[in-house]
Amino acid sequence: MKAQPCTIALDAMGGDHGPSVVIPAALKYLADNPHANLILVGDEQRLDACIGKASRERLRIHHTSQEVAMDELPSRALRNKKDSSMRVAIDLVRDGEADACVSAGNTGALMATARFVLKTLPSIDRPAISTTVPSLHGHTHMLDLGANVDCSGAHLFQFAVMGSELASVVDGIDRPKVALLNIGQEEIKGNEQVKQAHELLLNSSLNYVGYVEGDGIYLDDVDVVVCDGFIGNVALKSSEGVAKFVRHSLRKQFKRNWFTQLAGLAAMPILKRFSGDIDPRRYNGASLLGLRGIVVKSHGGADAFAFENAIYIAEKEIREDIPKRIGEQVGRQLEGSGQYRETA
Amino acid sequence: MKAQPCTIALDAMGGDHGPSVVIPAALKYLADNPHANLILVGDEQRLDACIGKASRERLRIHHTSQEVAMDELPSRALRNKKDSSMRVAIDLVRDGEADACVSAGNTGALMATARFVLKTLPSIDRPAISTTVPSLHGHTHMLDLGANVDCSGAHLFQFAVMGSELASVVDGIDRPKVALLNIGQEEIKGNEQVKQAHELLLNSSLNYVGYVEGDGIYLDDVDVVVCDGFIGNVALKSSEGVAKFVRHSLRKQFKRNWFTQLAGLAAMPILKRFSGDIDPRRYNGASLLGLRGIVVKSHGGADAFAFENAIYIAEKEIREDIPKRIGEQVGRQLEGSGQYRETA
Repeated sequence: MKAQPCTIALDAMGGDHGPSVVIPAALKYLADNPHANLILVGDEQRLDACIGKASRERLRIHHTSQEVAMDELPSRALRNKKDSSMRVAIDLVRDGEADACVSAGNTGALMATARFVLKTLPSIDRPAISTTVPSLHGHTHMLDLGANVDCSGAHLFQFAVMGSELASVVDGIDRPKVALLNIGQEEIKGNEQVKQAHELLLNSSLNYVGYVEGDGIYLDDVDVVVCDGFIGNVALKSSEGVAKFVRHSLRKQFKRNWFTQLAGLAAMPILKRFSGDIDPRRYNGASLLGLRGIVVKSHGGADAFAFENAIYIAEKEIREDIPKRIGEQVGRQLEGSGQYRETA
Repeated sequence: MKAQPCTIALDAMGGDHGPSVVIPAALKYLADNPHANLILVGDEQRLDACIGKASRERLRIHHTSQEVAMDELPSRALRNKKDSSMRVAIDLVRDGEADACVSAGNTGALMATARFVLKTLPSIDRPAISTTVPSLHGHTHMLDLGANVDCSGAHLFQFAVMGSELASVVDGIDRPKVALLNIGQEEIKGNEQVKQAHELLLNSSLNYVGYVEGDGIYLDDVDVVVCDGFIGNVALKSSEGVAKFVRHSLRKQFKRNWFTQLAGLAAMPILKRFSGDIDPRRYNGASLLGLRGIVVKSHGGADAFAFENAIYIAEKEIREDIPKRIGEQVGRQLEGSGQYRETA
């Protein structure tokens, strides 16, 4: 099957490493995907130098004069950085010049700018950040991951609807299993927001399977796990911490003496494959859901391999026309629930 | 050095497995610790049968007629289960018959009962659950882990003071490094409670090192990580989920074919040691801090090895007289901060 042509704008200055990561990722992606076009948004001179003699086929530079710093306040970026690589990459999506954009820049600024430029879908109060994490049954979609702290039950419900639709489209599942992240305490089963979302979900037509605890993200047979952004961010970052700790422990054990080093040599191919299994770079690329356009956030510290993954996620969302499909389904679900009027 | 004699009451009916886990753990612990006495609290007939012909030296059964179910509402347990193994084990601590108690029972009921029977220390509004998790620099004390959802900034500050004192006493650190768990978003750096606790901590005499993100629990050089109970519970359970997922992936890779199985054999001792490094059973046993007595919570699903660990934690807290020392320090810190009067 021949893939449809598509154009993706890359915020080439974003992230901890800027062009030195974005450009190798872009060149590799273009070489492997003859249907794709990329727009590198950023400082022309720097990008030019970085591309050097590599082929520029289906690659275009869109010059911008500003950058959003990783620690810049979102409100300031929005006000003062109208010619930043991040802002212009999103503008290109709004103007139809690009089908999606990818940025490894400051998450808060990216979310604020995307929301301002692209606007939210009808019925959606707040966009959410969603990513997939590996799990025993394949993978789980998780949202929100930091866009929203202090969510109401209604917000969590909207996230559930978006996550369900995303899983349905991306994984081709008819009725994805949706769960709410909660704690395993009996009487104090969650805070008020979680209980409220639970009620809304019980009365919805989603395939709601109830509460999961933190370990359920990785172990339970669920497709979508919903939580507020503070919780989601902590859960994800804690998980990354454990994975790094585990890799460190394993390396340490194999380095103890010559015998363990030998054993490590024998086990090397298996350990490599195992490291691949749990490599968070394979899962790099979080979707900003609920917007009238496709924006993918790469991890700030991503390397070229990880950043390329984020480009693939954008491509997939283009192919599946995620915003349109989420918009339709979300409208239907939220109207059906009787809880919402169209607010846009 | 000869250890001081001590007496620990065990809720022998608590947890998913009751006496079948508690009794082997108790017998093993007694055999290894000639200075220790244990009181098994629970159904005499069942305990008797379970102990069988094993030595009963320094072991005493305290009969009770009730049990608290794992899914029982804490308020109901408190009202209706006055002769439960959990309640009586705590009563024994209050009455000075035991120096500490350990239970693998229902966390909510344990916390509610302990708080009712033992009372909180002066200046402490709410007890917190604390445990240690492994980290690159050794281990980190983390609290709260589920006792309190929806904490105020002042509550988080109290947890920080208790955690700091615990780390200081247990690990012999002069000024433990205390951090607040937060998310890595810029403008929206945390919710209101976290920001408020941050201000209180900046103005305290604790060795406050600022915010850490979820991965910092395992990777950063901090001794104490403070968060509300919902967040802490999710972070801990997510971490457990990842660790299980990782073990599963590793096993899967080694089972792929005869070659990988051979390599696995060679690597077996190293992998065993590695599994030991990340085995959550080694860290089983969470302290209920802020009470006028020592209560240790074992994981509900703990096996005998893990439950025995929880007994060792109780013993350590007895030896260090944790409640008294926390009480003194907390009073000093909270008075010093000018934020609190003694409320008890």
